[in-house]
Amino acid sequence: MTRVRVHGFSISIDGFGAGPNQTLEHPLGVGGEQVHKWMFPTQTFKDMLGGKHGTTGLDDQFAKRGFENVGAWILGRNMFAPSRGAWLDDGWKGWWGEEPPYHVPTFVLTHHARAPIEMKGGTTFHFVTDGVEAALERARAVAGGKDVRIGGGVATLRQYLQRGLIDDMHLAVSPIVLGSGESLMTGIDLKALGYEVSEHASSEAAMHVVLTRGAKAPAAKS
Amino acid sequence: MTRVRVHGFSISIDGFGAGPNQTLEHPLGVGGEQVHKWMFPTQTFKDMLGGKHGTTGLDDQFAKRGFENVGAWILGRNMFAPSRGAWLDDGWKGWWGEEPPYHVPTFVLTHHARAPIEMKGGTTFHFVTDGVEAALERARAVAGGKDVRIGGGVATLRQYLQRGLIDDMHLAVSPIVLGSGESLMTGIDLKALGYEVSEHASSEAAMHVVLTRGAKAPAAKS
Repeated sequence: MTRVRVHGFSISIDGFGAGPNQTLEHPLGVGGEQVHKWMFPTQTFKDMLGGKHGTTGLDDQFAKRGFENVGAWILGRNMFAPSRGAWLDDGWKGWWGEEPPYHVPTFVLTHHARAPIEMKGGTTFHFVTDGVEAALERARAVAGGKDVRIGGGVATLRQYLQRGLIDDMHLAVSPIVLGSGESLMTGIDLKALGYEVSEHASSEAAMHVVLTRGAKAPAAKS
Repeated sequence: MTRVRVHGFSISIDGFGAGPNQTLEHPLGVGGEQVHKWMFPTQTFKDMLGGKHGTTGLDDQFAKRGFENVGAWILGRNMFAPSRGAWLDDGWKGWWGEEPPYHVPTFVLTHHARAPIEMKGGTTFHFVTDGVEAALERARAVAGGKDVRIGGGVATLRQYLQRGLIDDMHLAVSPIVLGSGESLMTGIDLKALGYEVSEHASSEAAMHVVLTRGAKAPAAKS
């Protein structure tokens, strides 16, 4: 059965998934790249960039899982492009070059219609203008029984969380403060939505926590 | 020089330092005791209760530090008593029995005046009705050059944070979600207030993060 999954979503200890003032120079907001520091040295991340000599420990294990059994992706507009509003005829095809790391149909949430873009390596970007639920339906339909991964960003994730549509969410809590930016959880009661911690483990760089909807809470020890 | 310190302040990954609906049965709010799970097995915590066979690893090292070189404590009313409003003549002398674990002058923030209570082992509870800054002044004055520790709870800590009066704050981020309760950082921009992470280390049970005001940010690696 298709599960709707989030992986490697990084937040600061004050709860921000991106810093303030996103621009082309700061796609993750000012200071926002710091929340992802745990991921940069991993082999999984280096593979995406064609690099070598990555780490293969706990951080990599969590990063790697995020690419297993994924039949479709969903991305917010801002994860696809730095532009806002109507699409310009500027040839923009995402941040990732000719062969994006998705390799499956990838649905981009937007208010502005656009023809699909077929990339090398199996990724096709589809632009969805009728909302998060429609995007999920379309993603499920093409996932072929595999899972759907919600890539982010924060605003996209919040919309899916608030509707209780995410089954599993791996967060990487980084030991930093951002102070301001896009808060992932403010105003969202994860407990009331049925989420419990189903797994956790820490590396030097981050505390990995997996939340699962409908998971039984681990028995309290004292 | 006296520093104003916070230690072992536990929060969930969604930022709550206490659960909702505090009562006598749930002094930390419903589910709130879970954020402190890292601390319960430590020797430092067991010492407070006269117990033995505690752990002495990373969690204990962080817990232990919190009692070193402390010349005075400050506590919010709710950390001292479950009652609210005017003091009742009910003989309440805190949660800790005849010999509280403070062993120094301890200032309790309240809106209701009350004579000091001298306890065994060096703790005297003083009740301060003129606000957090007055309490800190009085605590500094009697600390004898040692540090002042702010014990909590959440509302007290927020007031000191918002005024930039805390020099060092050790947070223990526990791998749990509370969903609702008392949020430590919502609406407080720690970055703008000058806080940076000066130290971090993780155990199986918690990610320990020390924030220091005016500390230089560690150089970003990528």
